[in-house]
Amino acid sequence: MGPHPAVAAIRLAVRRVLHDILNDHQTSRALAGRHPGPTAERPPSPLVLVACSGGADSMALASALAFEAPKLGVRAGGVTVDHGLQPGSDLRADEVALRLRELGLAPVESVAVTVGREGGPEAAARDARYAALDAAAERHGATAILLGHTRDDQAETVLLGLARGSGIRSLSGMAAVSGAGGRYRRPFLQLDRQTARKACMVQSLQVWDDPHNADPAYTRSRLRHEGLPALEKALGKGVVEALARTAQLSRDDADALDAWARQAEASVRDAAGLLECAKLYALPPAVRRRILRRAAIEAGAPAGALFARHIEEVDRLITGWRGQGVINLPGKVVAQRQGGRLVIRQG
Amino acid sequence: MGPHPAVAAIRLAVRRVLHDILNDHQTSRALAGRHPGPTAERPPSPLVLVACSGGADSMALASALAFEAPKLGVRAGGVTVDHGLQPGSDLRADEVALRLRELGLAPVESVAVTVGREGGPEAAARDARYAALDAAAERHGATAILLGHTRDDQAETVLLGLARGSGIRSLSGMAAVSGAGGRYRRPFLQLDRQTARKACMVQSLQVWDDPHNADPAYTRSRLRHEGLPALEKALGKGVVEALARTAQLSRDDADALDAWARQAEASVRDAAGLLECAKLYALPPAVRRRILRRAAIEAGAPAGALFARHIEEVDRLITGWRGQGVINLPGKVVAQRQGGRLVIRQG
Repeated sequence: MGPHPAVAAIRLAVRRVLHDILNDHQTSRALAGRHPGPTAERPPSPLVLVACSGGADSMALASALAFEAPKLGVRAGGVTVDHGLQPGSDLRADEVALRLRELGLAPVESVAVTVGREGGPEAAARDARYAALDAAAERHGATAILLGHTRDDQAETVLLGLARGSGIRSLSGMAAVSGAGGRYRRPFLQLDRQTARKACMVQSLQVWDDPHNADPAYTRSRLRHEGLPALEKALGKGVVEALARTAQLSRDDADALDAWARQAEASVRDAAGLLECAKLYALPPAVRRRILRRAAIEAGAPAGALFARHIEEVDRLITGWRGQGVINLPGKVVAQRQGGRLVIRQG
Repeated sequence: MGPHPAVAAIRLAVRRVLHDILNDHQTSRALAGRHPGPTAERPPSPLVLVACSGGADSMALASALAFEAPKLGVRAGGVTVDHGLQPGSDLRADEVALRLRELGLAPVESVAVTVGREGGPEAAARDARYAALDAAAERHGATAILLGHTRDDQAETVLLGLARGSGIRSLSGMAAVSGAGGRYRRPFLQLDRQTARKACMVQSLQVWDDPHNADPAYTRSRLRHEGLPALEKALGKGVVEALARTAQLSRDDADALDAWARQAEASVRDAAGLLECAKLYALPPAVRRRILRRAAIEAGAPAGALFARHIEEVDRLITGWRGQGVINLPGKVVAQRQGGRLVIRQG
């Protein structure tokens, strides 16, 4: 008798990603000229770490990694991050580390971080967490770090992006592969949370439910427990899957348009490197606005503070010219039209 | 003392669109060689119709059109469609027509239609309605038809598109200008429903609330009364505005990518007109999938039945070739790889 379907599903998802990681690893070694000849030394087997909070998603991920990695000659370890935001979080982190060791993972590390305040509590915790994971990967020479984000997390991320109303890049959610050199991998992006939870249950894995996940003070928690269920009730059960598919399609679309804008940018600059209004005007609005956005960021506008309405206002210097004055953008950047050229610079 | 802010807002929205209509009208007359010389006959003033259900949105629109049109030398009329779906709907339509005449609109017409069943009750009613509006525009020689869709309707449309999970085109909602020759105009797409309702109230205009709008049997109604409010509660009051902005940005992005795909298509066909797999492979996924979709539709696949997952499967013939067989698509269309070419045809 094979494993429970939920366990089979999480293992398949991890196996696929491990294959990808091995392929990429061999390709990059070959490119570096370290292809193993017949007499060459056997290269050390790559190390893959799982980032584990102790919650159901990442515990399921850890269990599947522990099961699949040895079969592919991959070493499997784990990292748990103690954010220090609740009393006793250090003990909890030690407990999670113990469970990871019990699964057969090695090395396993519990890393304490200090969470700042920049960008709000969720963003600050995330920044501290990824910095710690990056450092752990470097320390252990890990090839990849697996993250337990599920399709449900992806759907929530798309809705959070939708609420910003800043275009399709913010609808593209989390990437299956991200970080420097494609370090971060998300094997569960196509898998629902329920499957991960079930896989823990049938494997008798103890999981820890982070109270933050149910705290209505957090936008994501409100979305998870109220917003998304109401949307499912109105639109049907397929909403989570549809949102996840939207993420993938939007990501590909945004990538293609960014590439187009990068390419088009050179053709709309004059000999002095200034943007020519007439040439900008001839471009599709989607491409033109991306060029304007890039120019504003290059001039020092912080990407996170630059909204669609800012770019629209700059765009009207091109498409609705009626002698407007200087337009102020975040980061003390100004945009103005001067003799058929668009000048975007520090004000 | 000026008008109430809500009345000022609806009038401004209509005035802007009337200016656009006049500009387009003059441009098209000039292109047709009918520019009025000093001795030319004065051309008949253009006629603009409002499509009015008797609900708050379209009654507000009718009142603003009646107020603004004469000031711009535009004739203003109205059409109300009797869908014949409820007992007494004919009397109601006559009543709406009477109210439009009382506003000073002329001509005013009440048109009875027969709603079929194709595509479900909402789609069938919409098809019948637009066919009747098109016919009315032809009959009266109208330059444009104004529709009362608000920003809230737009937000709902975006969420309905999101639930399909079929990419950014389905997120782009309703266009401000659509139909043959840009006949349909939506002046209220940036205006919220509350403003339209308020404008009716302060002008003492009687409005009729269509019971369908509150009937939870309709997806849009569930979205309006449950889904969207829950989303606003989770994400904040700006959600409707963010969704409407997403619609506009998605529309521009989808237009640009469609243009790219049209242009790229010629370059990936061989002398016999067949799609070359190697050249398709080199394109960005977003462009390649659009070309594949276009080819499938050209071969006879009905656009409405062709989902993202179909295109993904065809795409794997290019990006994940491992000897797959024929792929069946809707409309008895088949796709297969043959000697480095992708063949999509009737099966």
